[in-house]
Amino acid sequence: MGASITIIDIARMCGVGVTTVSRAINNHPDINDETKAMVMKVIKENHYVPNNSARNLKRSASKTIAVLIKGITNPFFNQMIQVFEKEIKRKKYSFILQRVDDKQDEIDVAIELEKEKRLKGIVFLGGYFSHSKEKLDQLTVPFVLSTIGMTDEFDANDYSSVSVDDFKESYKMVDYLCNQGHDKIAIITASMDDVSIGKLRYDGYKKALEDNGIPFNNQLVRCMKEDIESYSMENGYMVTKELLESSEEFTAIYALSDNLAIGACKAIIEAGKSVPEDYSVAGFDGLDITFYYNPSITTIRQPVDEIAEETIRVLFDLINKKITHAHRIFPAELIVRESTKSR
Amino acid sequence: MGASITIIDIARMCGVGVTTVSRAINNHPDINDETKAMVMKVIKENHYVPNNSARNLKRSASKTIAVLIKGITNPFFNQMIQVFEKEIKRKKYSFILQRVDDKQDEIDVAIELEKEKRLKGIVFLGGYFSHSKEKLDQLTVPFVLSTIGMTDEFDANDYSSVSVDDFKESYKMVDYLCNQGHDKIAIITASMDDVSIGKLRYDGYKKALEDNGIPFNNQLVRCMKEDIESYSMENGYMVTKELLESSEEFTAIYALSDNLAIGACKAIIEAGKSVPEDYSVAGFDGLDITFYYNPSITTIRQPVDEIAEETIRVLFDLINKKITHAHRIFPAELIVRESTKSR
Repeated sequence: MGASITIIDIARMCGVGVTTVSRAINNHPDINDETKAMVMKVIKENHYVPNNSARNLKRSASKTIAVLIKGITNPFFNQMIQVFEKEIKRKKYSFILQRVDDKQDEIDVAIELEKEKRLKGIVFLGGYFSHSKEKLDQLTVPFVLSTIGMTDEFDANDYSSVSVDDFKESYKMVDYLCNQGHDKIAIITASMDDVSIGKLRYDGYKKALEDNGIPFNNQLVRCMKEDIESYSMENGYMVTKELLESSEEFTAIYALSDNLAIGACKAIIEAGKSVPEDYSVAGFDGLDITFYYNPSITTIRQPVDEIAEETIRVLFDLINKKITHAHRIFPAELIVRESTKSR
Repeated sequence: MGASITIIDIARMCGVGVTTVSRAINNHPDINDETKAMVMKVIKENHYVPNNSARNLKRSASKTIAVLIKGITNPFFNQMIQVFEKEIKRKKYSFILQRVDDKQDEIDVAIELEKEKRLKGIVFLGGYFSHSKEKLDQLTVPFVLSTIGMTDEFDANDYSSVSVDDFKESYKMVDYLCNQGHDKIAIITASMDDVSIGKLRYDGYKKALEDNGIPFNNQLVRCMKEDIESYSMENGYMVTKELLESSEEFTAIYALSDNLAIGACKAIIEAGKSVPEDYSVAGFDGLDITFYYNPSITTIRQPVDEIAEETIRVLFDLINKKITHAHRIFPAELIVRESTKSR
């Protein structure tokens, strides 16, 4: 969140990736002339100076950690950022917070930040993570994925992570709903090409249904709207409105985030129905508002502070070469509140 | 939110003001030996290097704007910060976000940041503002107070501001409640020594009661708990619990923020009472959650984006010496929802 204009901003203004901007600057052959001209024009108009020369200037001890975050408005991340800031400062390192657009490739952003800011380490916070090993290998400094679920396709030796077990915790919630007698459980989930926490939590849902002998009904799987902020109250509200207007029968909604669950409650209440009498609603994350909402919302509480602290601990263990990689899984807690009841 | 260890961190660690740290460093006579020794010890332990020499180093064009914020967890500020970041980058300036503790003096923090970061301008966001003219005069760069209500004691020529009219908007809400037939309206307000938006909104409450011929009852004035985060859901919850347990009669609660109002609703509902049938509840700010809460919450919506954009416009007009000061007042909107009803 600091910093003057960077190559990342130029890329955003041009509507291209940072790699493309880098190619334009460095006369790389793999860029067409039109794009190159456009990029160079934006660079000139914005008085952007590529930072190669600046890199050699002596600067005040710049041992910097970057935190790359998808979705800064998530209240869940706010608390984590505060812990990061405190812990990083305690280590006498600087701290850069860089927001990454949904459309940006976070590895490209990280690679450029590495160069411009001479990073010592990177935390990737939230978001999807569907990069190839080749791509990850381009990162030359240690990094930790924090609250980013990784699917099995990845070799666990290639990265480090701190999170809850999204599959298991999601299973726990849906299993609880099944045990309450629900057999028509709708889910508000990520898009089907999601390969991160969205997929893991969705897989947990499917497995719990299966283990409880409940047939899977594709009509009850509702993906978030792509034109609305993901995991937001508004998204949960719109998706649930549509679900209610369809002829599909269900008795419970499991939403992949608390904000989605709040939006779902609102849509149900607006339709003249009641939570939990007509529909049970459950969320995921454990935000404060789930306690204060009416009805209070059943959720999975992630141990936010512990995850954030451990993220920094692992990152510095990597920086100090104490470890080559690590995966830490924190247990989360099922909190049963008023928004769910047995049938 | 950028920056390595600063004098501000040292001050925080020592539990003293930055002025005291500065005096210790500069062998100023106005500091006792014991404090000085303590400060120098912390400085040494943390490898902090006072930045005087660094100031002369050529650094990459550091035209920096600092935003000093009280209460970074306020969702209201989150949205403003995003606008600040965008607008400041568009002007090709760097952007520093500095959180200020409740206990810290934001002017002292600003003065040190001015030196360390060679600021071109400062935005003060939120919080109280009870500084003397002498103190304000120590700031050598332009600054704007954003969403900080200033009371009349200040000469309007001495500063610039962008906000709503907190007195008038608060009056509007309480006048509306009176018109709905409420004559026992409790308020959840700031401490009585607040001289900023807390005081202005409280004054609006008192004036609206007076104009509606409703006698003022000091028992219905409830200050936020000082040991709980101010303006938070938890604070509204605890204060309202206490109010409900007292023998004081009332039919409406006016809370100075939406989060306080949400906490108030929760306390009422937990006590087996209903909003709005037993008690009307009204907030202030216009957060998204007020639409999604059940019941939806009557509030005063501040035009957040407009205020943030205008803040930066005024700041750059000051920097470019187009103006000497400016005060911009945006109208806010009373949004009547389900949480209030007529008696």
